[in-house]
Amino acid sequence: MSNTLGNLFKLTTFGESHGKALGGIIDGCPAGIEIDFELVQNELNRRKPGQSKIVTQRKESDTVQFLSGIFEGITTGASIGFVVENENQKSNDYDHLKDTYRPSHADFVYEKKYGHRDYRGGGRTSARETVNWVVAGAIAKQIIPTVKINAFVSSVGNISLTTNYKDLDFNLIESNPVRCPDIITANKMEELIASVKKEGDTIGGTITCVVQNVPVGLGEPIFDKLHAELGKAMLSINAVKGFEYGSGFESAKMKGSEHNDLFNEDGTTKTNFSGGIQGGISNGMDIYFKVAFKPVATLLQKQNVLTNKGEIIEQQGKGRHDPCVVPRAVPIVEALTAIVLVDNFLKNKVNSL
Amino acid sequence: MSNTLGNLFKLTTFGESHGKALGGIIDGCPAGIEIDFELVQNELNRRKPGQSKIVTQRKESDTVQFLSGIFEGITTGASIGFVVENENQKSNDYDHLKDTYRPSHADFVYEKKYGHRDYRGGGRTSARETVNWVVAGAIAKQIIPTVKINAFVSSVGNISLTTNYKDLDFNLIESNPVRCPDIITANKMEELIASVKKEGDTIGGTITCVVQNVPVGLGEPIFDKLHAELGKAMLSINAVKGFEYGSGFESAKMKGSEHNDLFNEDGTTKTNFSGGIQGGISNGMDIYFKVAFKPVATLLQKQNVLTNKGEIIEQQGKGRHDPCVVPRAVPIVEALTAIVLVDNFLKNKVNSL
Amino acid sequence: MSNTLGNLFKLTTFGESHGKALGGIIDGCPAGIEIDFELVQNELNRRKPGQSKIVTQRKESDTVQFLSGIFEGITTGASIGFVVENENQKSNDYDHLKDTYRPSHADFVYEKKYGHRDYRGGGRTSARETVNWVVAGAIAKQIIPTVKINAFVSSVGNISLTTNYKDLDFNLIESNPVRCPDIITANKMEELIASVKKEGDTIGGTITCVVQNVPVGLGEPIFDKLHAELGKAMLSINAVKGFEYGSGFESAKMKGSEHNDLFNEDGTTKTNFSGGIQGGISNGMDIYFKVAFKPVATLLQKQNVLTNKGEIIEQQGKGRHDPCVVPRAVPIVEALTAIVLVDNFLKNKVNSL
Amino acid sequence: MSNTLGNLFKLTTFGESHGKALGGIIDGCPAGIEIDFELVQNELNRRKPGQSKIVTQRKESDTVQFLSGIFEGITTGASIGFVVENENQKSNDYDHLKDTYRPSHADFVYEKKYGHRDYRGGGRTSARETVNWVVAGAIAKQIIPTVKINAFVSSVGNISLTTNYKDLDFNLIESNPVRCPDIITANKMEELIASVKKEGDTIGGTITCVVQNVPVGLGEPIFDKLHAELGKAMLSINAVKGFEYGSGFESAKMKGSEHNDLFNEDGTTKTNFSGGIQGGISNGMDIYFKVAFKPVATLLQKQNVLTNKGEIIEQQGKGRHDPCVVPRAVPIVEALTAIVLVDNFLKNKVNSL
Repeated sequence: MSNTLGNLFKLTTFGESHGKALGGIIDGCPAGIEIDFELVQNELNRRKPGQSKIVTQRKESDTVQFLSGIFEGITTGASIGFVVENENQKSNDYDHLKDTYRPSHADFVYEKKYGHRDYRGGGRTSARETVNWVVAGAIAKQIIPTVKINAFVSSVGNISLTTNYKDLDFNLIESNPVRCPDIITANKMEELIASVKKEGDTIGGTITCVVQNVPVGLGEPIFDKLHAELGKAMLSINAVKGFEYGSGFESAKMKGSEHNDLFNEDGTTKTNFSGGIQGGISNGMDIYFKVAFKPVATLLQKQNVLTNKGEIIEQQGKGRHDPCVVPRAVPIVEALTAIVLVDNFLKNKVNSL
Repeated sequence: MSNTLGNLFKLTTFGESHGKALGGIIDGCPAGIEIDFELVQNELNRRKPGQSKIVTQRKESDTVQFLSGIFEGITTGASIGFVVENENQKSNDYDHLKDTYRPSHADFVYEKKYGHRDYRGGGRTSARETVNWVVAGAIAKQIIPTVKINAFVSSVGNISLTTNYKDLDFNLIESNPVRCPDIITANKMEELIASVKKEGDTIGGTITCVVQNVPVGLGEPIFDKLHAELGKAMLSINAVKGFEYGSGFESAKMKGSEHNDLFNEDGTTKTNFSGGIQGGISNGMDIYFKVAFKPVATLLQKQNVLTNKGEIIEQQGKGRHDPCVVPRAVPIVEALTAIVLVDNFLKNKVNSL
Repeated sequence: MSNTLGNLFKLTTFGESHGKALGGIIDGCPAGIEIDFELVQNELNRRKPGQSKIVTQRKESDTVQFLSGIFEGITTGASIGFVVENENQKSNDYDHLKDTYRPSHADFVYEKKYGHRDYRGGGRTSARETVNWVVAGAIAKQIIPTVKINAFVSSVGNISLTTNYKDLDFNLIESNPVRCPDIITANKMEELIASVKKEGDTIGGTITCVVQNVPVGLGEPIFDKLHAELGKAMLSINAVKGFEYGSGFESAKMKGSEHNDLFNEDGTTKTNFSGGIQGGISNGMDIYFKVAFKPVATLLQKQNVLTNKGEIIEQQGKGRHDPCVVPRAVPIVEALTAIVLVDNFLKNKVNSL
Repeated sequence: MSNTLGNLFKLTTFGESHGKALGGIIDGCPAGIEIDFELVQNELNRRKPGQSKIVTQRKESDTVQFLSGIFEGITTGASIGFVVENENQKSNDYDHLKDTYRPSHADFVYEKKYGHRDYRGGGRTSARETVNWVVAGAIAKQIIPTVKINAFVSSVGNISLTTNYKDLDFNLIESNPVRCPDIITANKMEELIASVKKEGDTIGGTITCVVQNVPVGLGEPIFDKLHAELGKAMLSINAVKGFEYGSGFESAKMKGSEHNDLFNEDGTTKTNFSGGIQGGISNGMDIYFKVAFKPVATLLQKQNVLTNKGEIIEQQGKGRHDPCVVPRAVPIVEALTAIVLVDNFLKNKVNSL
């Protein structure tokens, strides 16, 4: 029930942070898609730890092996199985977690819910799981090559990118370790993260995602609205606390006469408060949404933790962790977006016979 | 694919604004639940139009008929079919919509997606659909009577309720037509809505929902996290543009050392930035979240609309519409919350044999 | 989980034999299908009791009301809600069932599973549920008008129709109350049923279904094979004990050299032991399968029943029941076949983008 | 859609006969189950080719690697990923299949449906897929250790085991290569298979499965009846053409007065024509069913095949194949039965709160 994303293009995943491997099965990939494996690896590299000074220095090669469903480089319509082996695990780093529950982590609730848990590095709760999502997202992107998906960091702590996305050059996103396409803002963000890291602390941030070239008609009415599926996917990412699309929370302050997007004669609209989606269905305008990430809960400071005997003890945070998760989450946001879109492209094919 | 909410407690719905009836099937309701039909009707009455001056003056009796699954007042475990007949339809009010697409409505995208649509009153896109949700929510609430679900209006336009929810008296929610438990703020909101209405305009707002007495362990890991399911449900409501839980978007500005919820010895936490959910699983603390609603798109003003011939013409908004949707959306938010919770109570039963 | 058939063309149903109404929701019906309502009613009439001397003399008008999803006679892509009201219920006929469990009925297991059941006329377990299936099947048939689905009674007790289906005139199926297209065999079957009825006894039989004009490629590999979905649907019909397709159980006695269907140059095959399906996917040849029905368990004789106090008492069967269920089950077999086929037509649309 | 079996205990699989590996994900395995890995390997060994002279002489080590979801030998409730690597592939044996479609194989329909296929050894259509099912079945068996599942070969060609299953000693099933618990019949079957093999031919057969110690109440009403789920699972096995449970096709010849299973005072029944299931729900009596397998389509003889240019040419069957599939299918039938049962045990847990 809980390890599958999508209905027609379905990703089912497995794996723990310090188990043998993570992996997944992509079921419902159309036949006849030529797969560019370098592109897949490239996306994995974007997510990989150790890319810059402001992210965790763990080293993981994050090499994916495809085991089925692709023959002579082309998808066959069969389920695509893949694995990403775990390497460079320092499980001993996590022995102190066996009997303790870290604040604002899922240790406690997993213990209560399941009774038996792989505590090493968070086990199944680890964001290492997102490596699977990036693999599937990289396949999804290749199914809909004309759709342009660009995510970027739009704020870190109090430093926000205020430029309208239309005035940004998405080519600059990868030009800096923060993945913010405005270099001046990016520098400020980078400094903030560095200073927070120095304190052994962490900081939150937001990611904005823009999707261009989406045809009219994607998305299902009522309970599977396109933005509801995007929202659910984003809220699946570790540390995400909020999702808004189009005018978002700001719309709650507006009047209808300000907010309505008047039509042009060709069906496009003069403004786009709607964020490219009406009644849950894409209207051909750009889709854009924003995702809020809380600060990572693992601090490299002393903190009070709860033991399984009901005691509060002081514990020093250990391991290799990100001081700010948003730069590495950019390819994850894009990957889930691609998966949701492909799923909805397929759903849209069955509206008529 | 698109008309079902829930996995184990499943609501599937049908119905158009001006068709014969709306209705649904609740599949997966446990056997042996004694149903209080008055309570169901009471929830419907809360959602009903025409309750006060600040909501639409349409008259709908909104009487639900249960057709199956309940025998001698007690659920049998069989699927529960129900219908709510449409009355007092003024379909002629909508003749002007046959060939035109209103701005920020779903007319245009439905036409493009399906080719053939019931244009009367928005047809399937109408928020009248939510009558079905309130019926199912009222059943769901009775399955988990110990859980307390309270939603209320937390802002209308620029008027916000700033009091922490712990200092509010939820008994006051129904004391005023806005459904804001702070009377002074409620009055201001009511005035704002009245003045907006006078202009033939509309205004957005937010609803906050607080869920108390939730046991530890509800919610599934990875893709069906409890907050992701709540978020998706909320984003299914007409006019919703954003969802956040716990510290929400504010968390993106915070440091980990500020944000972490330190444990007490009994497993409760000293703060609750987490909003009662860790890693997608309830931790026993209060769950709270906020939902942003855009201003209703139907204005009782002249507005430019698009015709199906690609012309822009001026059209006067007609019909009976809400100037602000949030007061009537309060029971809808509660209903969906109840449905998601029951679904997760059931899911949680299969974690062990 | 249990009241839905189909994945993309989905029927969800509700209703008890002696409740207010039965009904269902068809979700996933493509938009733009013109519905012939007479054809729907015609199928219902074929299933209806009281059509001849050899079926039950209950009178039910079995009139379906469509409540949504069809506008101006054409489907809109929205979910189609429908109800069939119960009339002419003689619930008092069933008072004797309140505290007793009839042999080879589901009374006992429902009581044990759910604790509380609608015992009147079998409640949810009654074959009256199949009225819903026939409604949805009649819609499904209209979605794929070129596909020809013909079911007929191929045996009653020891009287079997041995003619190959290719030598039968399907136009004769409706010419006699048994629905056997060979008149001489039909007469024998009719006599057998009449004599069994006289004894207050019942008799089993089989139905054969032939599907023609199915294109190559319907059906999914591995777990949703076309014949597996047909088999599951048939095994959902009350009283069904077996399903075989193509060469069926006979194939277990054959050698590969006898059984293999050699190709013609155009991809058709010289023989059709495969029954039109290879590896779960239609190959363009006729699909044919056979379904075995046990004798109806309700006898109009004295029989020992179990009481809820654990006593065995003698009870006289009452009510109006079919001495042989297969003639009325013919349209049900066809309806489920049509639903499964439409579902697979839709599934087949998403194999490529 | 097509690579998943089960709803709450879900197996999703991947893999081609001559790809790198097969494997799967078990989602929904309850936490806290201690896994006996030897038992899993033991089941794999039962399915493995090369066990005796009457099965294919391919050598595959069929070693499963579990990658997640089991920590310190105990399930954690997380998804269980596993892979079985392919070894000893002789892909060159299959070069002749690149451009040809073998009779009664799925080559032709896969080509037409997907356009691009892995032709080596049948690719995804190969029964090698069942190795995944046996892995999941071996886990499932350990979740419900008190339930006894015994499958055995009940016929090969015209040689049938006629003894009632109650008079058989299930301990003898593994005593002979045919897996028939009656030694004299087993010998005859073995001789028949040997002689068929000599001719380069193949032969069909049936498997009977008996499930004991099932509690009352498993199975869902209407569309997910227990026998319908068992039937669908069995019809998913390569080469299966028919399924019957309890009295099966024989019931179609019987009268109700003969067929009804009269109750004992304790709720058991004097006879068991019902096959342990009433109205789709287990009644506590033994469940038994029979599955018909056609003869394997691959002959080691010359046969006419179709080329992708529409020509009929003669081809000599090559490779290592089973002359009769039923002995090796015994553990597969048991595995799928176990999976369906566990799924229904879990479903049954949510009938009440």
